[in-house]
Amino acid sequence: MNRLERVIAAMEAEGLKQFILSDPSSIDYLTGVAIDPGERLFALLIRTDGQHRFFINRLFPSPETEIAITSFSDTDDSIALIAAELDPALPVGIDKYWPAHFLLSLMEENAASAYRNASTCVDFVRAIKDDEEQALMREASLINDDAIEYAATQLRIGMTENELADIITDYYISRNSPGPSFTPIVAFGDHAADPHHVNSDRQLKVGDVVLMDIGCLYQGYCSDMTRTVLTAAPSEKLTTVYNLVRDANLAAEALIRPGVRLSDIDAAARDLITAGGYGAQFTHRLGHFIGREVHEYGDVSSQNDRTVEPGMIFSIEPGIYIPGEFGVRIEDLIIVTEEGCEVLNHVSKDIQVIAIN
Amino acid sequence: MNRLERVIAAMEAEGLKQFILSDPSSIDYLTGVAIDPGERLFALLIRTDGQHRFFINRLFPSPETEIAITSFSDTDDSIALIAAELDPALPVGIDKYWPAHFLLSLMEENAASAYRNASTCVDFVRAIKDDEEQALMREASLINDDAIEYAATQLRIGMTENELADIITDYYISRNSPGPSFTPIVAFGDHAADPHHVNSDRQLKVGDVVLMDIGCLYQGYCSDMTRTVLTAAPSEKLTTVYNLVRDANLAAEALIRPGVRLSDIDAAARDLITAGGYGAQFTHRLGHFIGREVHEYGDVSSQNDRTVEPGMIFSIEPGIYIPGEFGVRIEDLIIVTEEGCEVLNHVSKDIQVIAIN
Repeated sequence: MNRLERVIAAMEAEGLKQFILSDPSSIDYLTGVAIDPGERLFALLIRTDGQHRFFINRLFPSPETEIAITSFSDTDDSIALIAAELDPALPVGIDKYWPAHFLLSLMEENAASAYRNASTCVDFVRAIKDDEEQALMREASLINDDAIEYAATQLRIGMTENELADIITDYYISRNSPGPSFTPIVAFGDHAADPHHVNSDRQLKVGDVVLMDIGCLYQGYCSDMTRTVLTAAPSEKLTTVYNLVRDANLAAEALIRPGVRLSDIDAAARDLITAGGYGAQFTHRLGHFIGREVHEYGDVSSQNDRTVEPGMIFSIEPGIYIPGEFGVRIEDLIIVTEEGCEVLNHVSKDIQVIAIN
Repeated sequence: MNRLERVIAAMEAEGLKQFILSDPSSIDYLTGVAIDPGERLFALLIRTDGQHRFFINRLFPSPETEIAITSFSDTDDSIALIAAELDPALPVGIDKYWPAHFLLSLMEENAASAYRNASTCVDFVRAIKDDEEQALMREASLINDDAIEYAATQLRIGMTENELADIITDYYISRNSPGPSFTPIVAFGDHAADPHHVNSDRQLKVGDVVLMDIGCLYQGYCSDMTRTVLTAAPSEKLTTVYNLVRDANLAAEALIRPGVRLSDIDAAARDLITAGGYGAQFTHRLGHFIGREVHEYGDVSSQNDRTVEPGMIFSIEPGIYIPGEFGVRIEDLIIVTEEGCEVLNHVSKDIQVIAIN
């Protein structure tokens, strides 16, 4: 089955005959039609009878596609055009990210008998990467490996987080990547205790940890990894924390194989950190799915009992955050294989002390 | 009245006592709390009795604010936490951009008697810029004026659209802007016939029009302007089209003053272009509101009969697009004043032929 056929099979399993997909990334994935609509309406109506239809503002170039197209202008009532194509006696699937005002307008038209979040019909298809996608993800992560190793050689006393982030971005571009897949996170010292740190002009000094959570784009696919390197021999506490995070990363990756629940993978890392006394300082889920977007649907968390399947790609990124002192996070991407997993990152996860001057 | 008080007044006028605001830019505008939540839930419940409440994932640093905060983790049911704060016997206002899956989950909780798009309660407040905002918008546009004049001096035979876009980006950074407010649009020759052109490696040659639709950020506010310059003496057709676009721009700007309808401003430009025989080639609305975001709520179009008020800032950007030949667009930002409007861009709108080599 091709991608669209797999989505239709999922819709049939849920008893849905019509589904308004609006996520530009998913539409591109299914049809090859790439449009960035900004705040304007852009949608693909997927019907299980195969009578799909695009809704595209005339402002955007008309794509080459075998799928029917309803064109409209800024002054047309585009929601009424969608409603006219729906069977009002049946439920309609809705894209999880569709802006609320479109959905509320569609409801005012009494366009369907019910409205359901149907995104998993696409998301579970996207979650399984085919061979070509896996090859691109592998390459994106190889560039990322090289980037983080290069960045580690560029550390200097007094350089700022922003400067190091720029070095990383320039490195990606030198490797024929269009750039980062997300704003590189560079955190020095106690800034690393904020998992969502925003880079600053703070200057690096001896003794700081250097946390780099970075990724690049490569032919439409994303990499994402984190390493935390040191600039002085670590304290006993930092050594303990670092090794706990590394062991949690390794324990989780060792558990991955088809049939294991994502929640159990999270638990493998979390239980180890909790046993080490830092459970309350591991404040986020263990990982997230990734592919065309850095964060795709699906996570590795205590709430997700779905079992893993070959071809899934997600992150494994335990962390421990000690406010006012330091933070440590170690993140790899992995592909689930028939017998286990392939780790896409190859940079050492042991304590690395880098002499800076 | 402060900003939040003006929003509450708008809610009362609409008979709404509770409103879930989720647009990070609007929340920042009203409260000074700036969080970029990615796909995670982040919301401000605004209540007309003043008992407002934030819903913030623990992953993000807790903001300094006098507003109550409900914190939650990735594994909590955050929608249930919001539902518990709502009065189920009353309607609730919904942010226009709230992702559909949050809204559908809230509806499953039977959290309110009705769900209404209430974004205009904030958007109409944001649309009127105060003195400080106007000063920042003025400065952002002055930098943009200089950028487009600088870019025109950098035109060379054989340079690519991407290269010119990079020159513009670097110029912004040299002027203490953090960068563009949107990806600069640089279109050579017939590429300018696509209003939403994506820059390419196409090389500039003598005779091409050069359309630059560019803007920068300055202290959190955006500029946005378009000029179309020529690289050879224009044909009669190009001269006619160019002057028609310029005259449409001037006619629209001449009409702006408090009390005039936005649709009439659109008509002033559109009627002139239609009379000149190119109405079908002016394929988009005349303008859009702008401020903290490049596209804010509100447009200058035939569908918008709202009247303008002092302090509104929007674009005036007529264009004519001749596929396979060329396109011309001329865009300014304007502030509505007590007696007319102040045009924020000062770069010539007459035909400019630049000798390139």
